[in-house]
Amino acid sequence: MSSQVRNIDDALATITEHWQPHRLASVNDYDVKVVKIQGEFVWHTHPDTDELFMVLSGELTIQLRDRDVTLGPDDVFVVPKGVQHCPKATAEVHALLFEPKGTVNTGDAGGEMTSQLHELA
Amino acid sequence: MSSQVRNIDDALATITEHWQPHRLASVNDYDVKVVKIQGEFVWHTHPDTDELFMVLSGELTIQLRDRDVTLGPDDVFVVPKGVQHCPKATAEVHALLFEPKGTVNTGDAGGEMTSQLHELA
Repeated sequence: MSSQVRNIDDALATITEHWQPHRLASVNDYDVKVVKIQGEFVWHTHPDTDELFMVLSGELTIQLRDRDVTLGPDDVFVVPKGVQHCPKATAEVHALLFEPKGTVNTGDAGGEMTSQLHELA
Repeated sequence: MSSQVRNIDDALATITEHWQPHRLASVNDYDVKVVKIQGEFVWHTHPDTDELFMVLSGELTIQLRDRDVTLGPDDVFVVPKGVQHCPKATAEVHALLFEPKGTVNTGDAGGEMTSQLHELA
Protein backbone atom coordinates (compact mmCIF):
# COMPACT_ATOMS: atom_id res chain seq x y z
CA MET A 1 0.00 0.00 0.00
CA SER A 2 1.41 3.42 -0.84
CA SER A 3 1.54 5.65 2.20
CA GLN A 4 -0.53 8.79 2.03
CA VAL A 5 -1.73 11.49 4.40
CA ARG A 6 -5.25 10.91 5.65
CA ASN A 7 -7.26 13.57 7.42
CA ILE A 8 -9.64 12.28 10.08
CA ASP A 9 -12.24 15.00 9.49
CA ASP A 10 -12.25 14.45 5.73
CA ALA A 11 -12.67 10.74 6.34
CA LEU A 12 -15.57 11.27 8.73
CA ALA A 13 -17.27 13.56 6.22
CA THR A 14 -17.57 10.65 3.80
CA ILE A 15 -19.26 8.33 6.30
CA THR A 16 -23.04 8.35 6.22
CA GLU A 17 -24.02 5.37 8.35
CA HIS A 18 -23.59 4.52 12.00
CA TRP A 19 -21.59 1.50 13.21
CA GLN A 20 -19.74 1.16 9.88
CA PRO A 21 -15.97 1.26 10.52
CA HIS A 22 -13.77 2.64 7.76
CA ARG A 23 -10.04 2.00 7.53
CA LEU A 24 -8.05 5.20 7.98
CA ALA A 25 -4.58 3.66 8.09
CA SER A 26 -2.74 0.43 8.76
CA VAL A 27 0.32 -0.17 10.93
CA ASN A 28 1.79 -3.59 10.19
CA ASP A 29 -1.12 -5.96 10.84
CA TYR A 30 -3.23 -3.44 12.77
CA ASP A 31 -5.89 -1.05 11.46
CA VAL A 32 -6.88 2.41 12.60
CA LYS A 33 -10.58 2.83 11.86
CA VAL A 34 -12.94 5.79 11.96
CA VAL A 35 -16.56 5.23 12.88
CA LYS A 36 -19.75 7.15 13.60
CA ILE A 37 -21.73 5.76 16.51
CA GLN A 38 -25.30 6.40 17.61
CA GLY A 39 -27.76 4.22 19.48
CA GLU A 40 -26.91 0.96 21.20
CA PHE A 41 -24.68 -1.75 19.75
CA VAL A 42 -24.77 -5.42 20.75
CA TRP A 43 -23.08 -7.08 23.71
CA HIS A 44 -20.03 -8.91 22.48
CA THR A 45 -16.49 -10.01 23.29
CA HIS A 46 -13.28 -10.11 21.30
CA PRO A 47 -11.77 -13.31 22.67
CA ASP A 48 -8.36 -12.75 21.08
CA THR A 49 -7.67 -9.03 21.22
CA ASP A 50 -7.89 -5.79 23.14
CA GLU A 51 -9.85 -2.99 21.46
CA LEU A 52 -8.99 0.70 21.76
CA PHE A 53 -11.66 3.42 21.57
CA MET A 54 -10.66 7.07 21.14
CA VAL A 55 -13.52 9.57 21.17
CA LEU A 56 -13.12 12.55 18.84
CA SER A 57 -16.50 14.19 19.51
CA GLY A 58 -19.62 13.40 21.49
CA GLU A 59 -20.11 11.23 24.54
CA LEU A 60 -19.72 7.46 24.32
CA THR A 61 -20.75 5.00 27.00
CA ILE A 62 -19.06 1.62 26.95
CA GLN A 63 -21.21 -0.67 29.01
CA LEU A 64 -19.25 -3.39 30.80
CA ARG A 65 -20.91 -6.10 32.88
CA ASP A 66 -19.81 -4.49 36.15
CA ARG A 67 -19.83 -0.77 35.26
CA ASP A 68 -20.30 1.85 32.59
CA VAL A 69 -17.31 3.75 31.21
CA THR A 70 -18.12 7.20 29.83
CA LEU A 71 -15.80 8.81 27.30
CA GLY A 72 -15.79 12.40 26.07
CA PRO A 73 -13.63 14.09 23.43
CA ASP A 74 -9.95 13.05 23.55
CA ASP A 75 -10.66 10.23 25.98
CA VAL A 76 -9.11 6.85 25.29
CA PHE A 77 -10.16 3.48 26.72
CA VAL A 78 -9.03 -0.04 26.00
CA VAL A 79 -11.50 -2.88 26.40
CA PRO A 80 -9.32 -5.81 27.43
CA LYS A 81 -9.37 -9.04 25.47
CA GLY A 82 -12.25 -11.27 26.50
CA VAL A 83 -14.25 -8.59 28.33
CA GLN A 84 -17.92 -8.31 27.37
CA HIS A 85 -18.91 -4.82 26.32
CA CYS A 86 -21.67 -2.91 24.56
CA PRO A 87 -21.10 0.66 23.31
CA LYS A 88 -23.97 3.14 23.21
CA ALA A 89 -24.44 6.82 22.48
CA THR A 90 -27.54 8.99 22.75
CA ALA A 91 -26.21 11.56 20.27
CA GLU A 92 -23.76 10.91 17.45
CA VAL A 93 -20.19 10.12 18.44
CA HIS A 94 -17.13 10.19 16.20
CA ALA A 95 -14.46 7.76 17.26
CA LEU A 96 -11.26 5.99 16.28
CA LEU A 97 -10.64 2.29 16.85
CA PHE A 98 -7.22 0.56 16.93
CA GLU A 99 -7.23 -3.19 16.63
CA PRO A 100 -5.69 -6.07 14.67
CA LYS A 101 -6.67 -6.53 11.04
CA GLY A 102 -9.58 -8.90 10.71
CA THR A 103 -11.19 -7.94 14.02
CA VAL A 104 -14.95 -8.16 13.49
CA ASN A 105 -17.01 -5.36 15.04
CA THR A 106 -19.50 -7.70 16.70
CA GLY A 107 -16.79 -10.08 17.94
CA ASP A 108 -18.24 -13.40 19.08
CA ALA A 109 -21.85 -12.18 18.91
CA GLY A 110 -22.36 -11.85 15.15
CA GLY A 111 -25.81 -10.82 13.98
CA GLU A 112 -27.23 -8.07 11.84
CA MET A 113 -24.92 -5.33 13.13
CA THR A 114 -21.87 -7.17 11.83
CA SER A 115 -20.11 -4.93 9.33
CA GLN A 116 -17.28 -5.53 6.96
CA LEU A 117 -14.44 -3.04 7.16
CA HIS A 118 -15.00 -0.28 4.60
CA GLU A 119 -12.29 1.42 2.59
CA LEU A 120 -12.38 5.20 2.36
CA ALA A 121 -13.05 6.67 -1.06
CA MET B 1 -2.80 -3.61 33.64
CA SER B 2 -6.17 -2.40 34.82
CA SER B 3 -7.96 -0.54 32.08
CA GLN B 4 -8.68 3.10 32.77
CA VAL B 5 -9.85 6.13 30.85
CA ARG B 6 -7.00 8.37 29.72
CA ASN B 7 -7.53 11.87 28.42
CA ILE B 8 -5.08 12.98 25.76
CA ASP B 9 -5.09 16.64 26.83
CA ASP B 10 -4.51 15.77 30.48
CA ALA B 11 -1.64 13.54 29.41
CA LEU B 12 -0.07 16.26 27.28
CA ALA B 13 -0.34 18.72 30.15
CA THR B 14 2.05 16.57 32.19
CA ILE B 15 4.73 16.46 29.50
CA THR B 16 7.40 19.13 29.78
CA GLU B 17 10.10 17.99 27.34
CA HIS B 18 10.19 17.57 23.59
CA TRP B 19 10.83 14.20 21.91
CA GLN B 20 9.92 12.25 25.05
CA PRO B 21 7.14 9.76 24.22
CA HIS B 22 4.75 8.81 27.02
CA ARG B 23 2.56 5.72 26.96
CA LEU B 24 -1.12 6.62 26.82
CA ALA B 25 -2.51 3.13 26.32
CA SER B 26 -1.59 -0.34 25.13
CA VAL B 27 -3.45 -2.61 22.74
CA ASN B 28 -2.06 -6.12 22.95
CA ASP B 29 1.64 -5.69 22.15
CA TYR B 30 1.28 -2.19 20.69
CA ASP B 31 1.56 1.17 22.45
CA VAL B 32 -0.23 4.45 21.82
CA LYS B 33 2.14 7.23 22.81
CA VAL B 34 1.73 10.98 23.22
CA VAL B 35 4.65 13.24 22.43
CA LYS B 36 5.54 16.92 22.13
CA ILE B 37 7.75 17.73 19.18
CA GLN B 38 9.79 20.82 18.37
CA GLY B 39 12.98 21.26 16.36
CA GLU B 40 14.55 18.61 14.19
CA PHE B 41 14.95 14.94 15.15
CA VAL B 42 17.54 12.55 13.69
CA TRP B 43 17.35 10.61 10.46
CA HIS B 44 16.52 7.01 11.28
CA THR B 45 14.76 3.87 10.15
CA HIS B 46 12.63 1.30 11.91
CA PRO B 47 13.74 -1.83 10.07
CA ASP B 48 11.01 -4.05 11.53
CA THR B 49 7.90 -1.90 11.83
CA ASP B 50 5.67 0.77 10.37
CA GLU B 51 5.18 3.88 12.51
CA LEU B 52 1.98 5.90 12.67
CA PHE B 53 1.97 9.66 13.34
CA MET B 54 -1.27 11.46 14.18
CA VAL B 55 -1.00 15.22 14.63
CA LEU B 56 -3.24 16.73 17.31
CA SER B 57 -2.04 20.33 17.04
CA GLY B 58 0.61 22.24 15.14
CA GLU B 59 2.33 21.44 11.86
CA LEU B 60 4.71 18.51 11.57
CA THR B 61 7.02 17.85 8.64
CA ILE B 62 8.19 14.30 8.17
CA GLN B 63 11.22 14.46 5.93
CA LEU B 64 11.65 11.42 3.71
CA ARG B 65 14.61 10.96 1.38
CA ASP B 66 12.51 11.74 -1.69
CA ARG B 67 9.98 14.25 -0.33
CA ASP B 68 8.62 16.06 2.68
CA VAL B 69 5.23 15.10 4.13
CA THR B 70 3.46 17.91 5.98
CA LEU B 71 0.82 17.08 8.58
CA GLY B 72 -1.63 19.43 10.27
CA PRO B 73 -4.21 18.75 12.98
CA ASP B 74 -6.11 15.48 12.54
CA ASP B 75 -3.76 14.31 9.80
CA VAL B 76 -2.45 10.75 9.96
CA PHE B 77 0.58 9.33 8.16
CA VAL B 78 2.28 5.97 8.35
CA VAL B 79 6.03 5.77 7.72
CA PRO B 80 6.47 2.32 6.20
CA LYS B 81 8.87 -0.16 7.72
CA GLY B 82 12.44 0.43 6.56
CA VAL B 83 11.88 3.95 5.21
CA GLN B 84 14.34 6.61 6.39
CA HIS B 85 12.65 9.61 7.95
CA CYS B 86 13.36 12.65 10.09
CA PRO B 87 10.52 14.59 11.75
CA LYS B 88 10.83 18.33 12.33
CA ALA B 89 8.61 21.14 13.55
CA THR B 90 9.29 24.87 13.72
CA ALA B 91 6.66 25.40 16.43
CA GLU B 92 5.54 22.87 19.02
CA VAL B 93 3.51 19.93 17.76
CA HIS B 94 1.40 17.57 19.83
CA ALA B 95 1.15 14.12 18.31
CA LEU B 96 0.17 10.51 18.89
CA LEU B 97 2.31 7.57 17.82
CA PHE B 98 1.12 4.00 17.36
CA GLU B 99 3.72 1.26 17.10
CA PRO B 100 4.75 -2.07 18.60
CA LYS B 101 5.98 -2.17 22.20
CA GLY B 102 9.73 -1.83 22.37
CA THR B 103 10.02 0.39 19.29
CA VAL B 104 12.86 2.82 20.00
CA ASN B 105 12.28 6.43 18.94
CA THR B 106 15.61 6.74 17.14
CA GLY B 107 15.30 3.34 15.44
CA ASP B 108 18.60 2.18 13.96
CA ALA B 109 20.31 5.55 14.49
CA GLY B 110 20.64 5.64 18.27
CA GLY B 111 22.43 8.63 19.75
CA GLU B 112 21.62 11.27 22.30
CA MET B 113 17.98 11.75 21.26
CA THR B 114 17.18 8.14 22.13
CA SER B 115 14.49 8.16 24.82
CA GLN B 116 13.02 5.45 26.94
CA LEU B 117 9.25 5.23 26.91
CA HIS B 118 7.84 7.22 29.83
CA GLU B 119 4.83 6.24 31.90
CA LEU B 120 2.25 8.94 32.62
CA ALA B 121 1.88 9.99 36.21
